[in-house]
Amino acid sequence: MTKDDVAREMRDLQDYICGELEKLDTKGRFIEDKWQREQGGGGRTRIIESDQLIEKGGVNFSEVYGDVTPMMKNNTEITGDSFFATGVSIVLHPNNPHVPIIHMNVRYFEMDNGTYWFGGGIDLTPHYIVPAQAKEFHLGLKTVCDKYSENFYLKFKTWADNYFFIPHRDETRGIGGIFFDHISEDASLSKQDILSFCMNLGREFPKLYQYQAELGREKEISEEESAWMHLRRGRYVEFNLVHDRGTKFGLVSGGRTESILMSLPKNASWVYNNVPVVGSKEQQTQELLVKNVDWVNFH
Amino acid sequence: MTKDDVAREMRDLQDYICGELEKLDTKGRFIEDKWQREQGGGGRTRIIESDQLIEKGGVNFSEVYGDVTPMMKNNTEITGDSFFATGVSIVLHPNNPHVPIIHMNVRYFEMDNGTYWFGGGIDLTPHYIVPAQAKEFHLGLKTVCDKYSENFYLKFKTWADNYFFIPHRDETRGIGGIFFDHISEDASLSKQDILSFCMNLGREFPKLYQYQAELGREKEISEEESAWMHLRRGRYVEFNLVHDRGTKFGLVSGGRTESILMSLPKNASWVYNNVPVVGSKEQQTQELLVKNVDWVNFH
Repeated sequence: MTKDDVAREMRDLQDYICGELEKLDTKGRFIEDKWQREQGGGGRTRIIESDQLIEKGGVNFSEVYGDVTPMMKNNTEITGDSFFATGVSIVLHPNNPHVPIIHMNVRYFEMDNGTYWFGGGIDLTPHYIVPAQAKEFHLGLKTVCDKYSENFYLKFKTWADNYFFIPHRDETRGIGGIFFDHISEDASLSKQDILSFCMNLGREFPKLYQYQAELGREKEISEEESAWMHLRRGRYVEFNLVHDRGTKFGLVSGGRTESILMSLPKNASWVYNNVPVVGSKEQQTQELLVKNVDWVNFH
Repeated sequence: MTKDDVAREMRDLQDYICGELEKLDTKGRFIEDKWQREQGGGGRTRIIESDQLIEKGGVNFSEVYGDVTPMMKNNTEITGDSFFATGVSIVLHPNNPHVPIIHMNVRYFEMDNGTYWFGGGIDLTPHYIVPAQAKEFHLGLKTVCDKYSENFYLKFKTWADNYFFIPHRDETRGIGGIFFDHISEDASLSKQDILSFCMNLGREFPKLYQYQAELGREKEISEEESAWMHLRRGRYVEFNLVHDRGTKFGLVSGGRTESILMSLPKNASWVYNNVPVVGSKEQQTQELLVKNVDWVNFH
């Protein structure tokens, strides 16, 4: 399997997901910006803005290559003289606070010495956590993981708990999901198996989101719910700009800013020292923004 | 002059500025949260939220001390075994897009070996740049600087241009101002002189902002102007969370998050690839978000 094969699969995945999301939204259509990277490669940034399901979302494909710069050596695990990287990155911010924000990324790196690895992750950020829906999301991820390794789900779920965490708020970004990095072939999995795992995850993504979206998209929205949604999006901005490794690396290494920051919501807000009222549904959500919740067995 | 003397002056400055800003706002009143730092010291966070001039603002005083941690050694210029730091930090976000956002900070560090330095800065972020107002702001800063050293204004203005810059947007945060760091006594200035410079700057702050505020606070606001204001505040968030050294250091070193992030606006927004219309006043502002504008001599 060549790196071109992986890039083609990634590109096809972007097409598939955009098609499914347009059907799910019913009205919004992706606009595409093709861009080229001066030092090698480029990408297809696709953005959807709709008054139906998705207020603002992006499904990005990129395939970049070139010399490994000192900046990359200092800031990433990349070594050697030249690199190749391809992947798909998605963030969707819905109009309705009863529909969660969702993020997915699958990526592939290859160095000039032939070393390669896959990475990726999916996580869900409900504005209001509904445990039964959180459980369904994690069950869906576990089903995909279990097809490839009985160790994947627990390992990757724990990884996500630690990765999608906002230390300065001492809270998780949402209900987590899975996160993995530096996965290469070993005694039990071939390179083809790992690519297949990433693609399976990607193809499962629209179904996972459809389930979450249908349950909330028609719900009435109060002013309080809308205000809370924007506060939660403020936290999403904090995570992405302060902690997210991909965002930070992209911004400092001269990536295409508008493609990287498509992950930010249309509107976010900050109120000094907002503390949810005791017993409110906002407080119930706040209390569930912690690591190590066993969502699959939640009842 | 002891560190307690400096801290007392900083505390008095906070009181003075809060009093002046309440008069300027006419209706809003600061609420105060006193906080203590586990490892030594604490602060007084003061927040104003008003429907008159200031939508959301903070005027913070802090006086912290204790052991120098490995985290501080790795992330700052602080050396030695123990440190002392005191200062005042201000960010004001107005309700009206025709009034600029303003920021000021003055700070003092002292190490256990007796080494000390002052630092600080003021910068203005108009949503719409009016050159005559930008000039007036810089003239005010130059007048204070010139009382202490004929080199200060140009040196500190250039420093601000480089500091208040958003590399991933290739634009300045606003029209700059002055920024300085690591200032200690030398042949021409005593420690008392430098403290006096910082205090003069601080006492000038309310007058500088009053001038800017009175010119814009009563202006009518269109929907387009409000939308642009929120986009510019998105950039303000990007600067503070991605680049501002004080914010980054505070968040990673376990500072009080709500005091640090008082700098963020009530509302900010992001629109994919927003490009101001050619010839619009938004585009005119965008074109002035560059370094090295000689505002003092602008005509």
